[in-house]
Amino acid sequence: MRTIRQTGKALATKTVSAGQLLDASLAAIDADVVRGGSTYTHIDRSAAREAASSSDAFRDRGYVPSALAGVPVSVKDLFDVKGQVTTAGSRILRGAAPAVRDAAAVARLREAGAVFVGRTNMSEFAFSGLGLNPHYGTPLNPFDPSRLAGGSSSGAATSVALGHVAAALGTDTGGSVRIPAAFCGLVSFKPTARRVPLDGAVPLSTSFDSIGPIARSVDCCTLIDRVVSGQALDTTPRPLTGLRFGVTSDYVSDDLDETVSTAFNRAISMLRRAGASVERFAFPELHEVAGHLPLAGITAAQAWAWHREHVASHAEGYDPRVLTRLRIGEGRGAADYIDLLAARERFVRDARTRLASFDAWLMPTVAIVPPVIAGVEHDDEAFFAVNAKVLRNPSVVNFMDGCALTLPCHNEGELPVGLSICGPALADASILSIARSVEALLRASVPVVAA
Amino acid sequence: MRTIRQTGKALATKTVSAGQLLDASLAAIDADVVRGGSTYTHIDRSAAREAASSSDAFRDRGYVPSALAGVPVSVKDLFDVKGQVTTAGSRILRGAAPAVRDAAAVARLREAGAVFVGRTNMSEFAFSGLGLNPHYGTPLNPFDPSRLAGGSSSGAATSVALGHVAAALGTDTGGSVRIPAAFCGLVSFKPTARRVPLDGAVPLSTSFDSIGPIARSVDCCTLIDRVVSGQALDTTPRPLTGLRFGVTSDYVSDDLDETVSTAFNRAISMLRRAGASVERFAFPELHEVAGHLPLAGITAAQAWAWHREHVASHAEGYDPRVLTRLRIGEGRGAADYIDLLAARERFVRDARTRLASFDAWLMPTVAIVPPVIAGVEHDDEAFFAVNAKVLRNPSVVNFMDGCALTLPCHNEGELPVGLSICGPALADASILSIARSVEALLRASVPVVAA
Repeated sequence: MRTIRQTGKALATKTVSAGQLLDASLAAIDADVVRGGSTYTHIDRSAAREAASSSDAFRDRGYVPSALAGVPVSVKDLFDVKGQVTTAGSRILRGAAPAVRDAAAVARLREAGAVFVGRTNMSEFAFSGLGLNPHYGTPLNPFDPSRLAGGSSSGAATSVALGHVAAALGTDTGGSVRIPAAFCGLVSFKPTARRVPLDGAVPLSTSFDSIGPIARSVDCCTLIDRVVSGQALDTTPRPLTGLRFGVTSDYVSDDLDETVSTAFNRAISMLRRAGASVERFAFPELHEVAGHLPLAGITAAQAWAWHREHVASHAEGYDPRVLTRLRIGEGRGAADYIDLLAARERFVRDARTRLASFDAWLMPTVAIVPPVIAGVEHDDEAFFAVNAKVLRNPSVVNFMDGCALTLPCHNEGELPVGLSICGPALADASILSIARSVEALLRASVPVVAA
Repeated sequence: MRTIRQTGKALATKTVSAGQLLDASLAAIDADVVRGGSTYTHIDRSAAREAASSSDAFRDRGYVPSALAGVPVSVKDLFDVKGQVTTAGSRILRGAAPAVRDAAAVARLREAGAVFVGRTNMSEFAFSGLGLNPHYGTPLNPFDPSRLAGGSSSGAATSVALGHVAAALGTDTGGSVRIPAAFCGLVSFKPTARRVPLDGAVPLSTSFDSIGPIARSVDCCTLIDRVVSGQALDTTPRPLTGLRFGVTSDYVSDDLDETVSTAFNRAISMLRRAGASVERFAFPELHEVAGHLPLAGITAAQAWAWHREHVASHAEGYDPRVLTRLRIGEGRGAADYIDLLAARERFVRDARTRLASFDAWLMPTVAIVPPVIAGVEHDDEAFFAVNAKVLRNPSVVNFMDGCALTLPCHNEGELPVGLSICGPALADASILSIARSVEALLRASVPVVAA
């Protein structure tokens, strides 16, 4: 499975049918029990076969609803898919009633002709950035199976990295599509939250939840974004010459892994050689979000509002680490919460001012390379510390109500590193346009992940 | 002082100058120490004289920025006016620094040429609907000085009713412009909250605070709304024939004073005779807001977030009844608050659905006639019960994120009663257009308040 365009072209020229693509996908899933065994929480083969065969029949009659028609995609297990149980990676929802309708984003993908292959595994209730899951297993990093794939959209990333699907639909509250994409050498786009409707997705934070794709290219992400947002943005590539990028030493550059800073600086050098300017700027307000406390506080309060009834009856069924983070919201007072929301509004304005003179803000998507599973699996202190560090950079973009695309920027043979191209609210078209050109530049040196 | 148009015409024809209008206004204020003594918290005569004389000079040179040029208006004492102290009717802010800039709505009025005569008295921090104020005295009802003028924009209403100004700028969180307008036989418009910027006004509830005028006519309200919102709505009168009005027996019709129900039913009959349809409809969701608990809970939490620092240092300076209502927000948990906001969102949607088949929803603005001051002044239990009853009907409109205009609908010699014409969010133009025609119909039988 390659890009959506390549897949679509093969379908258009009848080189392959949607049915054959699906069969290949399911065969690959079956063959991947070792390295991909924890990628899915559920696969409904008969529904997928029916969708693929309808797609082929429609195409035969000349009806091809979109570039996604007949293309296999995966859906994170917190989206409602009609007739399936939404577990959100939890044990406590395993016995819930099947969804009576598709989530809004899923309905749009279905209408566009995408073939849903499987529901992908995730951090329980999307409440961590590492991708560990005590109920359904932990997806392994495709570059090194001793390392984490990242989260919370862990299975989403591995479903793409392993070549099972052309794209995955995920969610991102503090980095949950960008972290696993960066850790798995993939591309991912977190849109401005309000652009994609959240109906039918299990919420984590109503302030920060954003729906976005993980895929192999900027173009794939743009195609998915167009369908799930319902907006056809103009994403014509922008020439790099003359573009003004900003980078800051504040906060997001602290304590980077050597591998991360080397790859990031190399990308910056390439951009400069290509004619872009990359300027340092001060962003002192970032220190106010240090430890992402306001984001974590808002998220915990909103998550607690949703979870407290479940916790009252099924606390023992939760991942204890998720429960620990949820309970931060339990004691939160309304006035403190209101103050946090006001601080967030100030930060949104400050960020817009700081970024006003740049076409985009560049940062390492994650400060570290994919962590070794054994280092965090049974050590709570290490888990919470590493989790906070992994979420640190990407969560700033949610906090500023912005959008960001992560591109792989590592060299062949290195652990994967993500370069984030970030902008304020509703800069989505501009960020995607710039990302197309940055991707073309980096492609020369960055290997496309094997599948 | 009559309507803004009448005043503007007199200015345009040089029948009177802005300076003379102001002198007459100040003379009336000085003469009204008994019936109007508690109308203002502060009058800056020299600033007002300077504004009036500038206005006259501008007019002489042919510059007349708007229909408000040279027209005396009052401003509720919670709006910042450059160089003046904003007390919000409190004692604790009496020593605060003078405002360094105008509130956004005040700046727009100033730019439009309005002459600010005085800062009007109010319920402390706008946190009650009756208009009692233990620090600056309680404005008296112009129809019967033993009764309340209503609140929180109490002085705003009496400044208009006593003929000191052509219009007053107030705020409305649960009825605070409509209640005093109804009690004082005036017209008032609560716009959809988001239409008028709140910057520079002491907040009560960021969810519900709305900025609107109290004046003598729908036209006056429309002229003020145009300036403070910055939007020139099309408010051409709509013919009554064929208009569909809705009335409901649910909640807002419970326990009406005989005087109120008689006046309301008479207005309905007149509308029917004029060719409008008035249909009963069910609005069961209103019972969920019974006792306006969700609105009160949201308001208390948001008010507590703003007030808690002041309460920590100056609790003894507060009106004890305001403090009691504020402290409801003190113990509120974030998750409960989030649930209340979600309930509010559901109500906004439900209301839109219930009202979809009507051009407007009619209700008595307040369920009772202006209460006798002696009955609530020294009796906390009576105060809280009467306050809740007075706020009951108008607060529904804030809760549904709607807009409403109140018109006097009583007969000569009766205590004043308000008829509210209500619509959902952003129905402002439609409500004002309909209100113009309803006003013309009612004018025949309703006396214009003496001044």
